[in-house]
Amino acid sequence: MRIVQKFGGTSVGSIERIQETAKIVCMEIERGSEVAVVVSAMSGETNRLLALANAMSDNPTPREVDAMVATGEQVTAALLSIELNKLGVRAYSFSGAQAGFKTEGNHSKARISGVNGDHLIKHMQNGDVPVVTGFQGVDAAGNVTTLGRGGSDTSAVALAIAVHADCCDIYTDVDGIYTTDPRIEPKARKLSHISYEEMLEFASLGAKVLQTRSVELGMRYNMPIHLRSSFKLIEGTRVSREDSDMERAEISGVAYNRDEAKVTIKGIPDHPGIAAAVFGPVASADINVDVIVQNISVEGFTDLTFTVPRNDYKPTLEVLNKLCKEMNAREVNGDDTVAKVSIIGVGMRSHSGVAKKMFEVLAKENINIQMITTSEIKVTVVIEEKYVELAVRSLHEAFGLETA
Amino acid sequence: MRIVQKFGGTSVGSIERIQETAKIVCMEIERGSEVAVVVSAMSGETNRLLALANAMSDNPTPREVDAMVATGEQVTAALLSIELNKLGVRAYSFSGAQAGFKTEGNHSKARISGVNGDHLIKHMQNGDVPVVTGFQGVDAAGNVTTLGRGGSDTSAVALAIAVHADCCDIYTDVDGIYTTDPRIEPKARKLSHISYEEMLEFASLGAKVLQTRSVELGMRYNMPIHLRSSFKLIEGTRVSREDSDMERAEISGVAYNRDEAKVTIKGIPDHPGIAAAVFGPVASADINVDVIVQNISVEGFTDLTFTVPRNDYKPTLEVLNKLCKEMNAREVNGDDTVAKVSIIGVGMRSHSGVAKKMFEVLAKENINIQMITTSEIKVTVVIEEKYVELAVRSLHEAFGLETA
Repeated sequence: MRIVQKFGGTSVGSIERIQETAKIVCMEIERGSEVAVVVSAMSGETNRLLALANAMSDNPTPREVDAMVATGEQVTAALLSIELNKLGVRAYSFSGAQAGFKTEGNHSKARISGVNGDHLIKHMQNGDVPVVTGFQGVDAAGNVTTLGRGGSDTSAVALAIAVHADCCDIYTDVDGIYTTDPRIEPKARKLSHISYEEMLEFASLGAKVLQTRSVELGMRYNMPIHLRSSFKLIEGTRVSREDSDMERAEISGVAYNRDEAKVTIKGIPDHPGIAAAVFGPVASADINVDVIVQNISVEGFTDLTFTVPRNDYKPTLEVLNKLCKEMNAREVNGDDTVAKVSIIGVGMRSHSGVAKKMFEVLAKENINIQMITTSEIKVTVVIEEKYVELAVRSLHEAFGLETA
Repeated sequence: MRIVQKFGGTSVGSIERIQETAKIVCMEIERGSEVAVVVSAMSGETNRLLALANAMSDNPTPREVDAMVATGEQVTAALLSIELNKLGVRAYSFSGAQAGFKTEGNHSKARISGVNGDHLIKHMQNGDVPVVTGFQGVDAAGNVTTLGRGGSDTSAVALAIAVHADCCDIYTDVDGIYTTDPRIEPKARKLSHISYEEMLEFASLGAKVLQTRSVELGMRYNMPIHLRSSFKLIEGTRVSREDSDMERAEISGVAYNRDEAKVTIKGIPDHPGIAAAVFGPVASADINVDVIVQNISVEGFTDLTFTVPRNDYKPTLEVLNKLCKEMNAREVNGDDTVAKVSIIGVGMRSHSGVAKKMFEVLAKENINIQMITTSEIKVTVVIEEKYVELAVRSLHEAFGLETA
């Protein structure tokens, strides 16, 4: 087996944690695996470096911020290598540049365009352990670039692909993906397997355990990802291509997100282009729109409702109030106490069956559904925030999620 | 003019100091110069990183220590570049690897084997300011290496040579080289010019303002070095090849070093190879021997006296006591309250005249000379430490050093 292991900031946050992490690497080697490691900066270090840059200038040069911030992972990679050598493992730290991570795009949010894994493969075949800095690379001109927050997950999956690893193990402070949030539903069950598509849905909702880009990359190259805890060495959740032969439940889990607000612009004179007229200015204000519902036009007027992150509620109302006058719409109103609840599952063969059951369960609990949206593997409803726990527990039970 | 400016740890030790340093760079640009900058780590940063490595292991892997420590200068280079960009200068930070510093030899004490300055020259001709990390490079295999403490001076001179600079300005916390230590002789005068050879003698004695290797490199490639203060923007001391047409004083200065101890091994049976037999074990104990005097052999026995750094006094006595028995020598004794005083000057056409005058001056003050050694440009005596101030002041006056 050839494994790429990724350890985040809390797993390398202190001398003691680095020592624990080194033990995990050694255990994998003792199992006979060839191992490469990807590390983040020690927790807090990236913020310390950013604070220095911001102390220097209100608008620090992006190229130089990247050059500074990239040193955080370089220190961790060297420290872990020192510890591994102490334990008798031939480990070598590599910066993004040394490891062959090529990037394109802007500083602080570069994208990996390729990884030359050849020399790392040689190291691994020789029994050496490359310890590679996550989150960084170099662009075509040789400038140091960073991938943006959370980019280390993506680095790890990209490296796993480049060295033809059998799996990319992402060690973190949770031990996997659950059928729902165990803080709300104690009967929540850890999923042993999940598809990339489901993981993407979970990631875009509450479960912020894997960076979306890393999952997309794994999906594109079919690289299995094992999401697991660096505190408890037990099986976590394996993310892989859906096995069509696999007997599997229709539904994987119930996700929710409280960080929602809903706005409505009412009585818009209906003519082609009104959606563009509304969402253009909203996008220009850097506001991410999520669920959108446009009512059927009545007597030449229509309503448009959509959700935004709760932090963007006030700026969104400001944009819409301005638009309301310009477009001769009737009024704008909103509600920042709503939440999203979603049923996720690639096994969901027909939405209608799942959706019907979902609506029945919520109706039985007297929970009013404000908005509905569906995708291939998800049904989402917007409800009053105060009903979130009740909705999650009822749906978890109704879909039989406490048993595999 | 094309100038390489080097700023040490105290010149970049805080946000405020980096801002002052950026102003100095801007002044040089306003004078019409093309400028490249070499920086050290912020004062204290190298020690912080070494402490982390030593917390991890009693014997941290040298390759990884270098990788960690090298990040210190990378942060400074980025911070100074941010500040320069804020002031409207197009500055770009470069790590040792990016700047093209190739090294050979061991980690933590690598030597610069070459610098490819071509792309930095293009930047400078374009009006950009490269800000390069001192103290580091990469070896032939692409591993990050450091040059050892003080190596940033050497980086700066090597870069000046590689980009064909007219001068290498070393900014530090002293404003130049003086005819002697102004704390002992208030009439000490700053030297406006000094030869590489004299600078080497001053550097190997008290004046630890320039790393010896940087002076040797400047001498080999005839690169002028301007040693000056980053606190007072006045002319410092220019180190360059001796101009034979220049009317100059015989003597440049009086240097001294209190950090000395003297040991003697007496009554050694004299036969070929005794020097090797003594200095072999001393060198093996990593003790640097300086002034050596071997007495003329009397009736088949001889005495050997030499000086060592005062810290090495006890270890040296241990080595010699062991040797004394093995060689059937008579006895070992020593004195750790001695000091060296030197007269330095490339203008010193004949030693005998200078030495004669020096001995007369010391005799007049009743200072006993214990050992004497001479080089082409230096006469050194070993005396009792308590006479250092008196000797320095008397010689400074006798050789007329207070007036140019």
